[in-house]
Amino acid sequence: MTMILNDTHDPSLTSWVDSANTPDTDFPIQNLPFCVFRPRGSGQAFRGGVAIGDRIVDLAALGDAVDGAARDAAVLGARDSLNDLMAAGPQAWSALRLALSRLLRSGATPRPHLLVAQADAEYAVPARIGDYTDFYTSIHHATAVGRLFRPDNPLLPNYKWVPIGYHGRASTISVSGQTFTRPRGQTRGPTDAEPSFGPCKRLDYELEVGIFVGRGNDAGEPIPAGQAESHVFGLCLLNDWSARDVQAWEYQPLGPFLSKNFATTISPWIVTLEALAPYRAAWQRDAADPQPLPYLDYDSLRASGGLDIELEVLLETATMRREGQTPARLSQSNFRHSYWTVAQLMAHHTVNGCALNAGDLLGSGTQSGPDSAEAGSLLELTVGGKQPLTLPNGEQRVFIEDGDRVVLRGWAAAPGRPRIGFGEASGTVLPAR
Amino acid sequence: MTMILNDTHDPSLTSWVDSANTPDTDFPIQNLPFCVFRPRGSGQAFRGGVAIGDRIVDLAALGDAVDGAARDAAVLGARDSLNDLMAAGPQAWSALRLALSRLLRSGATPRPHLLVAQADAEYAVPARIGDYTDFYTSIHHATAVGRLFRPDNPLLPNYKWVPIGYHGRASTISVSGQTFTRPRGQTRGPTDAEPSFGPCKRLDYELEVGIFVGRGNDAGEPIPAGQAESHVFGLCLLNDWSARDVQAWEYQPLGPFLSKNFATTISPWIVTLEALAPYRAAWQRDAADPQPLPYLDYDSLRASGGLDIELEVLLETATMRREGQTPARLSQSNFRHSYWTVAQLMAHHTVNGCALNAGDLLGSGTQSGPDSAEAGSLLELTVGGKQPLTLPNGEQRVFIEDGDRVVLRGWAAAPGRPRIGFGEASGTVLPAR
Repeated sequence: MTMILNDTHDPSLTSWVDSANTPDTDFPIQNLPFCVFRPRGSGQAFRGGVAIGDRIVDLAALGDAVDGAARDAAVLGARDSLNDLMAAGPQAWSALRLALSRLLRSGATPRPHLLVAQADAEYAVPARIGDYTDFYTSIHHATAVGRLFRPDNPLLPNYKWVPIGYHGRASTISVSGQTFTRPRGQTRGPTDAEPSFGPCKRLDYELEVGIFVGRGNDAGEPIPAGQAESHVFGLCLLNDWSARDVQAWEYQPLGPFLSKNFATTISPWIVTLEALAPYRAAWQRDAADPQPLPYLDYDSLRASGGLDIELEVLLETATMRREGQTPARLSQSNFRHSYWTVAQLMAHHTVNGCALNAGDLLGSGTQSGPDSAEAGSLLELTVGGKQPLTLPNGEQRVFIEDGDRVVLRGWAAAPGRPRIGFGEASGTVLPAR
Repeated sequence: MTMILNDTHDPSLTSWVDSANTPDTDFPIQNLPFCVFRPRGSGQAFRGGVAIGDRIVDLAALGDAVDGAARDAAVLGARDSLNDLMAAGPQAWSALRLALSRLLRSGATPRPHLLVAQADAEYAVPARIGDYTDFYTSIHHATAVGRLFRPDNPLLPNYKWVPIGYHGRASTISVSGQTFTRPRGQTRGPTDAEPSFGPCKRLDYELEVGIFVGRGNDAGEPIPAGQAESHVFGLCLLNDWSARDVQAWEYQPLGPFLSKNFATTISPWIVTLEALAPYRAAWQRDAADPQPLPYLDYDSLRASGGLDIELEVLLETATMRREGQTPARLSQSNFRHSYWTVAQLMAHHTVNGCALNAGDLLGSGTQSGPDSAEAGSLLELTVGGKQPLTLPNGEQRVFIEDGDRVVLRGWAAAPGRPRIGFGEASGTVLPAR
C-alpha cells in the first residue's frame, strides 16, 4: 500500500463531537468511514456522509468548510452514490479524510450544523455496484466445508494456488436492516428419488468482509499486486446468505446460483484502508505452503499483507426480541486468517484482463478462523446440521429460523489505539410466501 | 406468451426502404429489431434505433412521425440505453413496433430523413446490464463436455431438473466488433506437478443466445413461468469466450471465473419475441425425461415453448483476411434444441425471490445440437482438443489462434416467410500482452 503520511491516525486526537471520544465507539476521529444516507422519512436525496461518534458529517452540507482537493472530493462524495468519489483515487480520498479530521478535531470550531444524528438517518447501498464477486479466502472454511462434501479430500488441489472466486448477484445486495422472505427452491435429500420444491430448510449466513473497488482498470490492463491497494476504496461487512439445501443440489458443475442470489447484506459503512493502516498484519502461511506465483507476490506481502480485523456474528431470535434478551454471539473470527490478501484478490481478478469499475464489490468469502468455534457459518458450527447449537436462553438452532436476525460486527483494536469499527450488517428472515 | 394481435407479421408486407425487401436481408419489415447506435465518428450521443433493411430508423429523430403510446415508447427508446424502454413493458414495445411497421410500409410516405445507413453507424451495448447470468440449456453440450471431464458420468443428476446457471461478468460485455487480448492465467496440465502462468493455450468460443430482460420483478416476487415471456424484451447473439485451460484448473468448487470474465461479445441487435412469434417450436423432450416441477411448467410449454432459430459460427483467420478468402463455417445449430425454454429460465431465476431488472442479460449457454457437427464450441468439435479441424483453405485449428475473428450469426426462416435475422456478433483475438 502507498502509505499517505499524515497525522489522522494519531491516537491522541479527540473530537469536539463528544460521542466520538468514548472508548467503545466504532467511529472515533481516527476512523471516518463513508456511507450514503439521508434523514429518515425526509424524502430528500441520498448523499454521502462520514461517521463521527454517533453523528454523520453530511458531505452535501460541507460547502466551503473544506477547500482545495478536499472540497473537490466532497463534491463527488455528496452525490447519491459514492462511485465518483471512488473513481477519483487515493489522493482525493486522503485529502478529504485529512480535511475532515482537522474540521472535527478538538480545538477546531464546532460546526454542529454539518451533522446528522445516526439515529435519525436511513442508509442506502453506498455505490451502484456494477459487478459483485465473491471469493473463498478462508482456508479453514474451505477445509471445513470440503470435509462435509469430500471427507477424504477436503481441500482441492487448486486452493493454495488460485484465489478461488465466482460472480455473485448485484441486484439483491442491500444495506443493513434488510429483510427478505425465506427463499424457496429445489432440493433433493440423499435418500430422495426425485427433487422437491419448497421453502429452504437449511438457511445459513456467511461472515465476510466486503471490498469496494475505487479506481478501476481498463479491460486488458491488469492491476499488479504491488499497486492493487491503491485501487481499493475501503472495506465493509458482508453477509452472504446461503440456502445450503438448494446449494447442494444445484452447484454442480457451475457453482452456486439460486442458493446465494436471493439476498446479500452489507454494512452501510465503508472503512478506508488508510484508517486501517495501523492494523496491518503478517500474511498467514505455513512453512509447507507453496510460494505464490509471481503475479500474486508483492513486497509488503509477508510483513503487512493482512489486516487484523475482529469479526463477530450475533443472533437475535424472535423470542429474544420479544423478551428483551441480549442477542447471542455465535462466533468470533479475524480477517488476518485469510489465506489470500486484498491485494492478491485484486491482482488475480484482473490478471486475465477483466475490467474492474469503481463501486464494484468483492466479498472475501466466509471468514472462519483456525478453531472450530471461530467458524463463520452455521454449516460449520453445527457440523453440517448434525450438532444443534444451544443458545444462552435455551433455544436451539441448526440453521436460521423465521424471524431470526443475524448481525455481523467488525472492528480493529489494539492497546493504546482507538477502535476502528465497521458498525454492523444486520438482516432478518421473514417466512416464505 | 401473451400474443399481441396485429398485422406486423404479415409475410406480404414490404417497405419503401428497398433493401428491406431483398430475400437475404436479416431485417425485413417483419423483424424491426432494436439497437443503440450513433453515426460513426460523429461524437453524437448514442440513441436507440430499429433496423430496416440496411438502414436504421433513428428513434431520436421520429418526433411526431408516430403518436400516442408509440411516441411515448419512442421517447424512452431514444435514450442512450434501452433500459427505460425495456422497463415500459410489452404494450409499449408492441405499440412502437406497430407504428414503425406502418411508417415503413410500402404505400406510406417515404421519410428517408429518419434513416441512418448501417454502414455509417457504430453501436453500443444496447442496455446498461446490471447483472449477467449464463445458463447451460443445451443437453447435448452438457453431455459432450461432461464426457470429457467424467467419461463414466457425463450428465450430472440435477441436469434434467434444474436449469443450471451461474452469474457472469457484466463489465466485459461488448458489442460486435469487440477486440480483446488473449487472456493470461494459471493452468496446470495433467502431468504438471505445479501450475504455471502464461497466455491461455485453449481459447474457445461458445455459441449462445442472449436474452434481455424487459420489465423486472421485485425481490421476493417470483415471475410465474406462464407470465415470464411478457418480461422478456428480446433476444440477441452471444459469444461466451472461454479459456478452457484456465477453466479446468480454477472451476472447482465454485464454477468458472477468470476463464470467462475477460470478454463476452453480443450482437448489437435485439430481436423481439413478437417478431419471432411465427417461429415458435415444440419443446424438446424424450419420453423418458422427467416432468418438470410445477413452477417450471406452463400451458404453452409443449406446443410452443421453444424457438426455431438457426445459429451459425464462422471463423475468419488472419490468413483468410489477408488473402480475401471467405470465412469458414465451423458449425450450425438451432435454439429449438434447448432443454429449457426462455420462460423456464426466467421462472427459475426468480423462484427464490431473486430480483431481475430491466436490461439484465441471460445467456442460454452453448447451443449444441444433437449431431456432433452441430457443436457450439471448439472443445466439442475437436473432442477436447484431440482432433484438429482442417479449414477449407488448408489451415488447421484446435483452439482459437491470435488474429482469428469468430462470427456468430442467427436467423429464423420458413418457406413463404421473410427471414428474421439477428445480424452478427463478431470478435477478434489479439496476442497476449
